[in-house]
Amino acid sequence: MDPQKQVELIRKNTVEVIREEELLERIKTRGSLKVKYGVDPTSPDIHLGHSVVLRKLRCFQELGHKVILLIGDFTARIGDPSGRVKMRRPLSPEEIEANAKTYREQALKILHPQKTEVLFNSKWLSSLHFSDVLELASHCTVARMLERDDFTQRYQSEYPIGLHEFLYPLMQAYDSVALRSDVELGGTDQKFNLLVARQIQRSYGQPPQIIITMPMLEGTDGRQKMSKSLGNYIGINEPPDQMYGKVMSIPDELIFKYFRLLTSLDEREIHLKERAFKEGKLHPKEAKGQLAKEIVRLYWGKTLAEKAEERFEAIFSKGEIPEKIPCYFLDPAKIKDGKIWVVRLLQLTGLAQSGSEARRLILQGGVRWDGERVRDVNLEIPLEGEHILQVGKRKFVRIVKKA
Amino acid sequence: MDPQKQVELIRKNTVEVIREEELLERIKTRGSLKVKYGVDPTSPDIHLGHSVVLRKLRCFQELGHKVILLIGDFTARIGDPSGRVKMRRPLSPEEIEANAKTYREQALKILHPQKTEVLFNSKWLSSLHFSDVLELASHCTVARMLERDDFTQRYQSEYPIGLHEFLYPLMQAYDSVALRSDVELGGTDQKFNLLVARQIQRSYGQPPQIIITMPMLEGTDGRQKMSKSLGNYIGINEPPDQMYGKVMSIPDELIFKYFRLLTSLDEREIHLKERAFKEGKLHPKEAKGQLAKEIVRLYWGKTLAEKAEERFEAIFSKGEIPEKIPCYFLDPAKIKDGKIWVVRLLQLTGLAQSGSEARRLILQGGVRWDGERVRDVNLEIPLEGEHILQVGKRKFVRIVKKA
Repeated sequence: MDPQKQVELIRKNTVEVIREEELLERIKTRGSLKVKYGVDPTSPDIHLGHSVVLRKLRCFQELGHKVILLIGDFTARIGDPSGRVKMRRPLSPEEIEANAKTYREQALKILHPQKTEVLFNSKWLSSLHFSDVLELASHCTVARMLERDDFTQRYQSEYPIGLHEFLYPLMQAYDSVALRSDVELGGTDQKFNLLVARQIQRSYGQPPQIIITMPMLEGTDGRQKMSKSLGNYIGINEPPDQMYGKVMSIPDELIFKYFRLLTSLDEREIHLKERAFKEGKLHPKEAKGQLAKEIVRLYWGKTLAEKAEERFEAIFSKGEIPEKIPCYFLDPAKIKDGKIWVVRLLQLTGLAQSGSEARRLILQGGVRWDGERVRDVNLEIPLEGEHILQVGKRKFVRIVKKA
Repeated sequence: MDPQKQVELIRKNTVEVIREEELLERIKTRGSLKVKYGVDPTSPDIHLGHSVVLRKLRCFQELGHKVILLIGDFTARIGDPSGRVKMRRPLSPEEIEANAKTYREQALKILHPQKTEVLFNSKWLSSLHFSDVLELASHCTVARMLERDDFTQRYQSEYPIGLHEFLYPLMQAYDSVALRSDVELGGTDQKFNLLVARQIQRSYGQPPQIIITMPMLEGTDGRQKMSKSLGNYIGINEPPDQMYGKVMSIPDELIFKYFRLLTSLDEREIHLKERAFKEGKLHPKEAKGQLAKEIVRLYWGKTLAEKAEERFEAIFSKGEIPEKIPCYFLDPAKIKDGKIWVVRLLQLTGLAQSGSEARRLILQGGVRWDGERVRDVNLEIPLEGEHILQVGKRKFVRIVKKA
C-alpha cells in the first residue's frame, strides 16, 4: 500500500505519533518495519484494555510489517513502575514463565500467529554485565528520571522509589537497541519509557524508533483505566455470557469509545450510530447490545455471540431487573472449591443482616440467583463469572469475583 | 593488647566511630579484624591528605588487625562522585592500571607491606550480571541517594547526575559484602558511602561493618581540602626539599592539626609545643620547621630531613626573603624538556611587563633564582620542585609546577 495511505491508517485512533514524518520516511526507505510491543508478564490475562494496542499491531501486520511481541520475562523481575504508587512484589521465574505462556496464547487471538515473532528480553538482558549496565545508565540522568510523573509524585509524597526501578525504563530502552526496532507501541502511560528508548537508541548510534501511543481504555466502572487489580476489566478469554454482561454494564459515555477502539466497524458506521444515539433515535441499551455482541463475536464467533445476547435478554430484560445495580466484589478467599453458601453471601452483601434473616428470606421464597428462585437454605452456589443476587422485588447486587 | 585499650588508640584523632561499642565487641569476639580501605586509582599520587587514613590503618596493623587496601579499578571507571559538582571523565583501563601500580607502591611506604593485602574490586564486580545489579539496587532508594549533600546540591542546581553515579555507593557497599569487612575507614566525605555499606551488608545478611571517619586535611592554602587538582597538596613522593618547603608554606593555624594527623609525636609532646606556641614562646617559623623536618624524616629518613632543613635555611632564612610570598602555579605545558626560559617566566609571573623589560632587569643584575643572581638572558631554568623568583629587593614569587 502507498506509504502515505499507510500512515493515515496507522494514525487512526492513536494519541500521538512521534514523529509522523519519520514514520512516512522509514516506510518509504525500508518497506517493512520492525514493530515492537513490550509486555510485562506480571499478569497473565489480556483484557480489552490491552487489545487496543494489540489491534493496532494487527493493523501493522495487515500492512505487511513485522511485529515483535516482546515478553519482558527479565524486566518482570522488577515490574514496570509506570503509574504505580508503591514498589511491586517481584515475581518468581515460575510465575513469570506461566504468565508469559498464557499471555502469548491470548495475544495470538488478536495477532496473526504467522506474522508475529515472540521474543523474551532475558535473551540479551541476562547476559549484560555490571560494566554494560554502567554504560547504559551513564546515558540517562537522575533528573530526567525524576521528571516522570509517577516518580515525581512518589518522590514528593515520600513513597520509596527503589533504585532498581530507575533501571526499568533503561532496560526497556535497551530492548529497542537489541532489536533495532523501527516503531514501538504503547499506551499513553508508556510515553516516557518510549521516549527514553528513542534517546538511548541515539546514544548507541541507531536511528530512534518512531513511537506511537494509544488511548488508555477506561474499565467497566467508566472512571479508572481498565485493570485486573481494579476489578473493572473485561478479559478476552472470559466466557461469552460474562463478556457480554460486562460490556452491558459500562456507562453510556463509553459506548462509542469502545466501538472505535475495540471493534472493526468502520468509522462511518460508528459515526451514524453515534448521531442516532445523540438524537435519541438509538436507545443506550440497544447501542450497548450491538457493541457487546460485536465484541463477543470478535473473540468467540457469531453463534456464541448470538447465544450470549439471548441469554442476557432472558435474564435481565424481563423488566424485572434494573439496568444499573450495585456491584459486590467477592474475595476469592471466601470461596471454597468454587462455591459459596447462599446464606453467607446474603450476609456478606448486606442483603440480609444475619444468618437467621437470610434463612427466613429464602424460606419465604424472596431470594433469586440469576433470576431463579432459591429454595434450599443449604445451597452452595457455584461461582463462575458474574451473577445477580436478588432479594424481594427491589434489592439487587451484582456479584463479581475479585481478581 | 586489651580490647578497651585498642579502642582508645583507634579512636584517637578520628571524627566518628560508628559504633564504638560494636568495635569493642567485635575485637573481643574475633580478635583480628578485617579492615577495609577503598582507593579510587583516578590519581596515582598519594599526598599527606591520604596519609591521615593510611596512618590510622598502620595503627590497626600494629594492633594485629588485617588491612585490605582495595584498589577500585572497577569503580574507577565511573570515579567517586563524592563532593563533585560535575561528572568525571571515565579513565581508560591502561590509566587505571598505571595509577593503581603507583598508588600501591606509595601506600606501602606507610603501611606494613607484609600485613597489607592489596585487592582489586574488578575481581567480583566485573562478574556481576544485570540481575545481581538489580538485586543490589533494590536495597536502596532514590530518596536515600538524593540525601547525599553533593547529589542534593547538584540536583537542586540542575547539574546533571548520571544514573550510573547513583550506582557508585552501591558498588562500594558491595565491596564490603564481598570482603565481609569488619571495619572500613575513610575521610568524613566518605561517611555517606560508608553508611550505605553498613545498610547493604545488613541486607545481605552480614553484620554491618564499623565505620571510622578521619578528618579532612586542609592543603597548603589552609582553606580547601588537600587535593592534587587544587594544587595545594604535598605528595609523599615529593623530594625532601620540596616537601620541606611546602610544609613551611602552610598557615600557622594548621601547624598543630598537621602535627597530630601527620607525625608520630605523642600527644603530650604536641600539647607542650602547642602551649609554648600560644604563649609566644615558640615562634611559628620554628614550630613549622620542626613539623617540616619531622614529616620529611618519616618519608626520607633523618639525614635527608636535616639536609632539607639546612638548604631551606640557606635560601630562605637570610632575612632577605619574606616568609609569605605569592605562589605562581606554572602550567606544565609551558615547560620544555623540564626547563623554561627565564625571560618567559618573568613575563608569565608578571614580574616583567615585556620581554625587553625582563632582559633589562637581568642585565641590571636585579633578578635572582633561589637567591642566586641570574646573569644570562638566555638561561633555561631547570624546574624541579619549588623555587623562588625574585626581582629587586621586594618582589618575590614562589614557582610551583601545576599538577
